[in-house]
Amino acid sequence: MTDLPTRVEIAEEGPREGFQIEPGPIATAEKVKLIDALSATGLTHIQVCSFVNPKLVPGWADAEATVAGFTPRAGVHYTALWFNAAGLDRALVFHDRLHLFGSISLAASEAFSKKNLNRDRQGQIDAMRKVTAAHLAAGVPVTRIGVQAGFGCNYQGDISAEQVVATVADGMAVAAEVGANITDVTLADTMGWATPPRIERTVGAVRARWPDVRLTLHLHDTRGLGIANAHAGLRMGVARYDATVGGLGGCPFAGQPGAPGNIASEELALLCQEMGIETGIDLDALIEAGRLAETIIGRRLPSAVLRGGALSGFRAKAA
Amino acid sequence: MTDLPTRVEIAEEGPREGFQIEPGPIATAEKVKLIDALSATGLTHIQVCSFVNPKLVPGWADAEATVAGFTPRAGVHYTALWFNAAGLDRALVFHDRLHLFGSISLAASEAFSKKNLNRDRQGQIDAMRKVTAAHLAAGVPVTRIGVQAGFGCNYQGDISAEQVVATVADGMAVAAEVGANITDVTLADTMGWATPPRIERTVGAVRARWPDVRLTLHLHDTRGLGIANAHAGLRMGVARYDATVGGLGGCPFAGQPGAPGNIASEELALLCQEMGIETGIDLDALIEAGRLAETIIGRRLPSAVLRGGALSGFRAKAA
Repeated sequence: MTDLPTRVEIAEEGPREGFQIEPGPIATAEKVKLIDALSATGLTHIQVCSFVNPKLVPGWADAEATVAGFTPRAGVHYTALWFNAAGLDRALVFHDRLHLFGSISLAASEAFSKKNLNRDRQGQIDAMRKVTAAHLAAGVPVTRIGVQAGFGCNYQGDISAEQVVATVADGMAVAAEVGANITDVTLADTMGWATPPRIERTVGAVRARWPDVRLTLHLHDTRGLGIANAHAGLRMGVARYDATVGGLGGCPFAGQPGAPGNIASEELALLCQEMGIETGIDLDALIEAGRLAETIIGRRLPSAVLRGGALSGFRAKAA
Repeated sequence: MTDLPTRVEIAEEGPREGFQIEPGPIATAEKVKLIDALSATGLTHIQVCSFVNPKLVPGWADAEATVAGFTPRAGVHYTALWFNAAGLDRALVFHDRLHLFGSISLAASEAFSKKNLNRDRQGQIDAMRKVTAAHLAAGVPVTRIGVQAGFGCNYQGDISAEQVVATVADGMAVAAEVGANITDVTLADTMGWATPPRIERTVGAVRARWPDVRLTLHLHDTRGLGIANAHAGLRMGVARYDATVGGLGGCPFAGQPGAPGNIASEELALLCQEMGIETGIDLDALIEAGRLAETIIGRRLPSAVLRGGALSGFRAKAA
């Protein structure tokens, strides 16, 4: 009854998420060290920074220096995040080091969008039309639709599969209008409302409508269900996940100070490994990178695997 | 394809697990306070202490005072843990406050048994025959078989479903020999080796052989898969779980210092609530009890729900 993928891709967002939210300051050299360590783990996608306003996100004032500093490794796609034309321009400078692509990012919750961006549904769509056109004009493909708050919202409550389908349809309409070719859809559980049955329903509904699009789940572990939700995704055949080493990052939303952020890359990698699903990741190296991240930020990260370790070592000793 | 239970029972082991492993000392009055708080959450089973050698487990030197101190609530079964005749005698003093029953406890891993108890398989069986007979002679029913290391072992590696079935069969043979009526089997993932597929295989194999026995899963979150494993149990129709408020406890096994112990009661309660499975638990009250536990032991507990909160509050505000 299950449709497990044979191979899973984990898109590592630890550097970008972590260095954005930690109180810092964290030296550029330390950021570069973590990116280089992650590059040696077998990960194929690493999001290295945000090109955002340094007055709003001081942790990424050194985005340029960080991107210039790491040592690119063949076969690894290094990505970055930005939200507007100014960020796009900064990213374009590094077109030789970064894998540049744009996303049409829409929230399934209008209340979330209003609260965070001061835009209603139509306002979101209009803004995305403009930014998508700007990407295409700059020669940067826009291949992805990202759905924020895809399973529930602290301000709006539950989000149904139908609302998610409607949001993806909004994004597809924008893409068609400006001539973007969408190959990917990311469903984000921005505030930790997902459960395994909700993952099944929403993934099922989106896939039924767009069977050829590749799905990514971006899961937060706000309430401890993150890995159970990822497992539900695996059972549904979802083969791509965003995650952060050690569970770097956190939840910036009201009412949840200290709540965990993203699922930990090494917990998901361990689950896949133990289920016989290939990730290409050297789990021990990834755990070492997580410990390095802890050293850099000076606190314990939520990942249990950083404490418990992989099973392979125990297996080898026991044999 | 799933066989979700309509109601789940969570057996709370936080006081016993937590106060055993914390460096302490923790005042008896504080232990009593947590037990009384847990009694008001709707939990129906609370394990309140261990009757063990205070030289070996100084945290439970005040087991008697703790049991004498809490305020029993109608409808709640208060239980305790002990390992030998001396412990049984101490428990018997409180037969009016405690729900007394014995377990036949066997490790599916002989290496674990040898390492921890200095007994091989036959030695375990012999010891259990003796202790079971002692319980029956004292008028205490022995109704449960507990399988330690039921999914894997740091000293022996993977444990197959067949090894677990053989271990339960050993316990059933002891029970038959001494006249104990087994109604329950607990499968414990003592060292955090379980994965959802292993839960399915092992639960399936045990249930196929003993369809009328009630199964309990005792899951550790050593590698972050605890709630995913509980969800696999739910899908297999398992309706009873051991857990600890806040994730109290820890992993006392070599090579895993600081690793999480039991799954958090409130994470499991939230999963059940969101899936429409009844637990009888007031989740907000349980979260409050978890925060009280953090205050008592003076450190943050691993439960994400203590930070993220229940969804019901956000839902109510959003409505």
